[in-house]
Amino acid sequence: MRYRLTIEYDGTQFCGWQSQADGGAVQDALSAAVEKFCGVKATLFGAGRTDAGVHARGQVAHLDLDDAPPAETVKNALNHHLKPAPVVVVAAAPARDDFDARFSAIRRHYRYRLLSRRAPPTLDVGQVWWVPKALDAAAMHDAAQVLVGRHDFTTFRSTMCQANSPVRTLDQLDVAEIGAEIHVTAAARSFLHNQVRSLVGALKLVGEGKWTADNVAAALAACDRTACAPVAPAAGLTFMQVDYPADMLAEPAAL
Amino acid sequence: MRYRLTIEYDGTQFCGWQSQADGGAVQDALSAAVEKFCGVKATLFGAGRTDAGVHARGQVAHLDLDDAPPAETVKNALNHHLKPAPVVVVAAAPARDDFDARFSAIRRHYRYRLLSRRAPPTLDVGQVWWVPKALDAAAMHDAAQVLVGRHDFTTFRSTMCQANSPVRTLDQLDVAEIGAEIHVTAAARSFLHNQVRSLVGALKLVGEGKWTADNVAAALAACDRTACAPVAPAAGLTFMQVDYPADMLAEPAAL
Repeated sequence: MRYRLTIEYDGTQFCGWQSQADGGAVQDALSAAVEKFCGVKATLFGAGRTDAGVHARGQVAHLDLDDAPPAETVKNALNHHLKPAPVVVVAAAPARDDFDARFSAIRRHYRYRLLSRRAPPTLDVGQVWWVPKALDAAAMHDAAQVLVGRHDFTTFRSTMCQANSPVRTLDQLDVAEIGAEIHVTAAARSFLHNQVRSLVGALKLVGEGKWTADNVAAALAACDRTACAPVAPAAGLTFMQVDYPADMLAEPAAL
Repeated sequence: MRYRLTIEYDGTQFCGWQSQADGGAVQDALSAAVEKFCGVKATLFGAGRTDAGVHARGQVAHLDLDDAPPAETVKNALNHHLKPAPVVVVAAAPARDDFDARFSAIRRHYRYRLLSRRAPPTLDVGQVWWVPKALDAAAMHDAAQVLVGRHDFTTFRSTMCQANSPVRTLDQLDVAEIGAEIHVTAAARSFLHNQVRSLVGALKLVGEGKWTADNVAAALAACDRTACAPVAPAAGLTFMQVDYPADMLAEPAAL
């Protein structure tokens, strides 16, 4: 039986989503919980490979189990065995056999939080990029629109990125001011490695007045990683949501 | 020179706002920072005495200094000396000699966050009350309206409360559902000791279907602390904002 899991985690102490030999990844914590629950090893396949320090409120993964326990039982058992690791299954549902958390996804949503003030964060430490100066959110939003659409994002992807093509279609890149925070909301079918953090790094320079929208356009057009602004730190980034076609979310007929 | 400070803190590790002999209070951390900055002891007077574990995003305090450094200098110096304690001064301004953070206040705003889901919190641990069951937010909101207005809140204040009168006017008690969270927003000129947490404790019973609005009304009418529901835990509560009359926020003429 295949399950679709919605997963939340505080990425601070993890080395990222992707399983590592030393077991410090979110995927490792989940696999260990599955093994404690079922007695057998099973791999979870995630919709996005978040980096070390990146958080998730809506990571999605699929998991195959030989038995077919109720989805609610899977959720509660995994949460029981995950404790005290800061990762939980917030929802579980039976999934079609051909549902694939990664390849069935049609849109991924990320949010990046910047804290723009002189005082460091207290309640939000580890979840924001603290920028101790004023940022022009309106200028950031305007410049962000240069990046929306179908482009070669070579400038804005890690040199370690394993994607075959640097071309992606960025559907949304909105910048909004919320009190002392600035939230960057990004949505696309898929993202390149470090793409959101690279885009936010450029927008931060715009917010400071060091770059204009023209500089952002030039960096994009350069298709050259060295034209990128310093990459924004991981802590501000949260993987919020994954969208799938409605038929992919249907309960499997076998149930 | 008198200053008005707006203060944010993560209350988790503090024994509350109010200064303690062993120095574990937010006030103590601030007083120590003032002493490091000025070389003399000075007391900060806060608008609200938050309990152990209660957070603040908009606590307000006043502080008198013999010299008259620019407010921005006071803010940055205190933040420098406060590190690494999770308390910061987010704003500082010169204040009138007769400005009093506590007695000049005309309205205080609190927010209480409940997390209503089976999975425990990860990113929000220490900042929400985790209630691992469904809560009816609409019923909670309706019942909350019974509590709005001028009442004897004996049922909803700590037996340790030092206020002369148990009568208060509750201006706002709104309940809103935000994803898996339920936010209770409370506003009043002043609150009694443990009042918000006591009110939230009652509303949680309503959310669970154990109490109705009539039970809330009866508890209020009883004017009896033993009629109160279990008090909600401190971690979910944040002191958000204090309002003052506009003339009290004016820059002092002496500047």
